[in-house]
Amino acid sequence: MLFEIVMRACIERAWQSQTLALPNPSVACALLSPTNEVLALQAHSKAHTPHAEVLALRQAFNALSPAPMPAHLDPLDKEANYRFLAQNHSGLFKDCTLVVTLEPCNHFGKTPPCAALLEQVHPKRVVVGTLEPSKKAQGGLKRLKQAGVEVLSGVLEKACSDLLTPFTCLENKGAFNLFKIATRLDGSYLGKISDQESQIFTHNQRTVANHLIISGKSVRLDRPTLNTRLATPPYQGLCHAAILTRNTSPFDPTIPLFGVKGRRVQVCHEVKQLPLKQGFNVIEGGWGLFESLRDHIDMLLIHTNASLQEGAQGLACHCTQGFKPLHSQILGQDMLAWLA
Amino acid sequence: MLFEIVMRACIERAWQSQTLALPNPSVACALLSPTNEVLALQAHSKAHTPHAEVLALRQAFNALSPAPMPAHLDPLDKEANYRFLAQNHSGLFKDCTLVVTLEPCNHFGKTPPCAALLEQVHPKRVVVGTLEPSKKAQGGLKRLKQAGVEVLSGVLEKACSDLLTPFTCLENKGAFNLFKIATRLDGSYLGKISDQESQIFTHNQRTVANHLIISGKSVRLDRPTLNTRLATPPYQGLCHAAILTRNTSPFDPTIPLFGVKGRRVQVCHEVKQLPLKQGFNVIEGGWGLFESLRDHIDMLLIHTNASLQEGAQGLACHCTQGFKPLHSQILGQDMLAWLA
Repeated sequence: MLFEIVMRACIERAWQSQTLALPNPSVACALLSPTNEVLALQAHSKAHTPHAEVLALRQAFNALSPAPMPAHLDPLDKEANYRFLAQNHSGLFKDCTLVVTLEPCNHFGKTPPCAALLEQVHPKRVVVGTLEPSKKAQGGLKRLKQAGVEVLSGVLEKACSDLLTPFTCLENKGAFNLFKIATRLDGSYLGKISDQESQIFTHNQRTVANHLIISGKSVRLDRPTLNTRLATPPYQGLCHAAILTRNTSPFDPTIPLFGVKGRRVQVCHEVKQLPLKQGFNVIEGGWGLFESLRDHIDMLLIHTNASLQEGAQGLACHCTQGFKPLHSQILGQDMLAWLA
Repeated sequence: MLFEIVMRACIERAWQSQTLALPNPSVACALLSPTNEVLALQAHSKAHTPHAEVLALRQAFNALSPAPMPAHLDPLDKEANYRFLAQNHSGLFKDCTLVVTLEPCNHFGKTPPCAALLEQVHPKRVVVGTLEPSKKAQGGLKRLKQAGVEVLSGVLEKACSDLLTPFTCLENKGAFNLFKIATRLDGSYLGKISDQESQIFTHNQRTVANHLIISGKSVRLDRPTLNTRLATPPYQGLCHAAILTRNTSPFDPTIPLFGVKGRRVQVCHEVKQLPLKQGFNVIEGGWGLFESLRDHIDMLLIHTNASLQEGAQGLACHCTQGFKPLHSQILGQDMLAWLA
């Protein structure tokens, strides 16, 4: 039951940065000491930074080693941390158990695979949630078994595989289209809604997205900026925008959305002109926009603010559809629900 | 970090039966072996059945003892399980750690206090989330410390104390009024909404409630039964009903609500006539009923079904109010949110 409980904690942690590591999958990893103390719990939360396994080994290294990691070693430097651990583990992890939501990767990118690092570091046991779905990265567990590491897989398999939905969608069809809506408890969604923590998440998500898709109506009414000013660390992602509008009159060019440096804004009068066929696209809008794009939407993310607003009635929804709730979490005064 | 992760798992488990053990608090408990294996995880989910500590010790006994619990011992018999563990623990738990969301009780009811059982069973360590708020049950940790048990308290204190909201409200003011609403993702709440698992939870909750309060409008329109036919185990609780209606014309007596055996139905034309001053009362309705009763509502429970329904628009809400989200969880096709 310990492995299930630790895996559940990894799953929760991984959902906290869901989509933020795209095009990589959302993965979290924990490291247990020989007496099953939890030494580390880490998620991979941005592409080109260390994988969850490396982050967890790094955190555990500091707990186990008499000498800490060198101060000059940037925690976000993928290659340097990999190399440091491979060279300096000194058998520290040999009686430890590594728990990870996804099979460790087995392909060479900028760094050698996590499976190769684990082979060297050689923990006693690796506990895995779900197997790597991407052919090019498969084989990690086989490699570890051959190296004599005890392997246990399929722990909370379904929940770990749900975590991969955005990643596998992007892998399989080349695009992942997420519809994001912010509402209140009463279903209303006009005016300013979201809590600051929730907004930070949204801005971080925009730094990763290829396109932001919004409706002409919301551009004209709300005059939004839709940039990434709240992202952590501050990062002005290029996140291009596409506007779906049936109204052919031009937009006021002083609307801040059009002034974001380096951003392209595409005005589309038909759904087929929208950039929905490639990359990670975030559609931010209300149920009207959802209805127009429903055939293209892969997942739904609802930010529900814990409030009621007098007279701020939700708009009637013009479609009937059932979803599968994958995860729900609290973020400040908002509740986030992920559905597929 | 292990204790935090196990405590978090206890908190999640306890919310799954939130309000169902009233007038007792919602509490969950885990037992860790000397090597920190999780041997047991249990919640107290009904008054007059064993406390979480006893249930966890029972489950761990079966994992540790060469001889299992006797088959004739009813798992739900509070006294028999307490007595059995006190007499037969044989030092099995002496190197174990007990993790529990609430300080073990220290008062005599039908059985002696949990703290007295733990004193006998004598685990190595007791890890506690929050202290017992009820004066008559306090002193458990002090007793354990005096008995030489290592005690660690305040682990995830805030989250553990949030769990107690219904209990402390009932203790402090003699009443706990929960407003429950079922909606869809679009905020609409007319017609049949909830998933079966969600309905089972609601029926279990009604078996514990003193009164169910509904609006005259919903009685006339929906002709509900509002009984406990789906409760597990099947149990026809008496859960009396009170209807708030401004319409003075009589109700059709063939509406099933009026035919539930042993139930009293009170028709109230004013809020002050409603049974809101005493006991655990569940108010089931829409935002109109919420608005009429908002000054009396202690907590909000929203069951959101993962669906959209064409044309089933939510009704405008006539009040502005902010809440604090305490917990969110998935239950079948529904998401439950608890707010205070």
